Amino acid sequence: MTRHTINDVARAAGVSKGAVSLAFNNRPGLSPDTRERILATARELGWTPSPRARALSVSRALAVGLVVARPPETLRSDPFFPSFIAGVESELSQHGYALLLQVVPEHDAEHQSYRRLSHEGRVDGVFVTDLYVDDARPALLAELGLPAVIVGPALSEPFWPAVGVDDAPGIAAAVEHLVGLGHSRIAHVAGPREMVHGRSRREAWSTALHRTGLPEGPCIDSDFSAEAGAAATRELLDLADPPTAIVYANDLMAIAGLAVATSRGIDVPGRLSITGYEDTELGAHVQPPLTSVCSDVIGWGRAAARRLLELIDQRPATDVSLPPPTLVVRASSGPAPVHRATHPTTGTPDT
Amino acid sequence: MTRHTINDVARAAGVSKGAVSLAFNNRPGLSPDTRERILATARELGWTPSPRARALSVSRALAVGLVVARPPETLRSDPFFPSFIAGVESELSQHGYALLLQVVPEHDAEHQSYRRLSHEGRVDGVFVTDLYVDDARPALLAELGLPAVIVGPALSEPFWPAVGVDDAPGIAAAVEHLVGLGHSRIAHVAGPREMVHGRSRREAWSTALHRTGLPEGPCIDSDFSAEAGAAATRELLDLADPPTAIVYANDLMAIAGLAVATSRGIDVPGRLSITGYEDTELGAHVQPPLTSVCSDVIGWGRAAARRLLELIDQRPATDVSLPPPTLVVRASSGPAPVHRATHPTTGTPDT
Repeated sequence: MTRHTINDVARAAGVSKGAVSLAFNNRPGLSPDTRERILATARELGWTPSPRARALSVSRALAVGLVVARPPETLRSDPFFPSFIAGVESELSQHGYALLLQVVPEHDAEHQSYRRLSHEGRVDGVFVTDLYVDDARPALLAELGLPAVIVGPALSEPFWPAVGVDDAPGIAAAVEHLVGLGHSRIAHVAGPREMVHGRSRREAWSTALHRTGLPEGPCIDSDFSAEAGAAATRELLDLADPPTAIVYANDLMAIAGLAVATSRGIDVPGRLSITGYEDTELGAHVQPPLTSVCSDVIGWGRAAARRLLELIDQRPATDVSLPPPTLVVRASSGPAPVHRATHPTTGTPDT
Repeated sequence: MTRHTINDVARAAGVSKGAVSLAFNNRPGLSPDTRERILATARELGWTPSPRARALSVSRALAVGLVVARPPETLRSDPFFPSFIAGVESELSQHGYALLLQVVPEHDAEHQSYRRLSHEGRVDGVFVTDLYVDDARPALLAELGLPAVIVGPALSEPFWPAVGVDDAPGIAAAVEHLVGLGHSRIAHVAGPREMVHGRSRREAWSTALHRTGLPEGPCIDSDFSAEAGAAATRELLDLADPPTAIVYANDLMAIAGLAVATSRGIDVPGRLSITGYEDTELGAHVQPPLTSVCSDVIGWGRAAARRLLELIDQRPATDVSLPPPTLVVRASSGPAPVHRATHPTTGTPDT
């Protein structure tokens, strides 16, 4: 028994080897009829491009990997992931690529996973998220020859391109907006310090306040969840000298905070201004509608996927210019309460 | 020892492979004689559309597939997917499995994708979502010998096990809760008819009302988004005889509807009761907190993954007893307004 080759398929279908590749790689350039004829011919001959043959001939697994060393619930509760994955898929789907998504307990397991994916030729490249200082993954991936795109700020990464959006301008815009409205006691409900976007938004809030010459308002460490956002808000409103404005690190916590204020009869924005981050769909549809920072995470995912496919194809990088986050001003933020504006306490930071 | 294949059955019965599929799928298109001959031949040869042959001979890919024929944004905006995927990953991660996620433009491309995933041995099994009537995918997967779990109601699926949660009891509980509070004009803001959970929740609302002897209140077709939920709510509140209660097909639309009512000065639940579906994290943290149907989609994903891994490993199915959805009563639902309770209009359905 002889095994058929791609040449046999090409000859029988009356096309070039390249056309057979295009058909099996689900790439543009073939009429639907031709594609169907090629696939039918291959089926008749019992020929399929085995992963190994593909690796040798077209060097494509037609999949890219995202290995996440976090609790699986992260994929739902951190609004970054559903949006990022949607963006990634919107680019991959145009090229017939799939996303191999794996959740592992910790970074050692992540390293093992990369070795296996690479060794078995299951993916053509990977996204690396949650980069930390002295992260060993970029070097490992370079050693494996597995193309990678770093998702997030570059951190002087020598091996791989990074595709990221800087949180700082969005948080700075929120703080400046509130300062412009006369607020001088501006609190922050922060995301977890161990998450890059939790830490970076907190730092951006602090930096923006220092730049305006205002003291830092109170800051509560939170975890991006509605429940913790509500608890943090209660803690802030219970202070002897509560803030007149709260900058939240995401919309979910901000919307929960809004409900806490409303349930206490605190007028928003009359007595308390609130800003969110991410400009979620729901933020525009709460009462009052939420002022928020619009960061295009879907576009980020799309750009990261495009860069990774370029890297895999050894094509030059097209210019990835992700728009900086912008502040969308709605009714949840307004002028600081008058009695505070006339009797500022901001000159003497509380202890 | 040789194992018979679908090809052997087709040859022995003198029919095409497609005809064997039709016979096993109990579909129209075959004469009763032909169908009987095919089934008899399969019995003689000991062939059943089972994944055994494949699982015995092929080494593990340690990945399962989810191919979605929907816009990529679905992965973010339909709250089902992030939760379901989180549940799937929480099971897969314990077995070192990965999820291969692919978004394709339509069902033809989905079929091609399954053929490719199967031929290349990239996945050991797949989840099939959004099952529709006369869906060709289960038979295709049987022909490919690619184990599958149907995500959703079984719809008399002959090939593969289904793991699903029935929406109806949750919506029925919401309607009965409102009827018990004296409401007699109960509206529905529905999800899209082309989505299984849009259609099933709408039918459950209608059925529950009929069972209580109440006429159907107004129903607005919507699309699960906050914006459309807000528009549907405005339409309902603008009616000459607006409903005193609205059952929404998801929390996102319900929370947006709540904001519309609040912005019009309509007290919830004093003048309008509102219920959601899914019991999202945020629902408990809006003002007033949302009465909603709690359906454990993470548990559903976990159960579907467990069943698929059992199928792949040829282990007997452990009992998948997904808890039925339950109504979580919070402050957004309350007694019907008194003037309605004392002058019911329910005996004479409005035109």
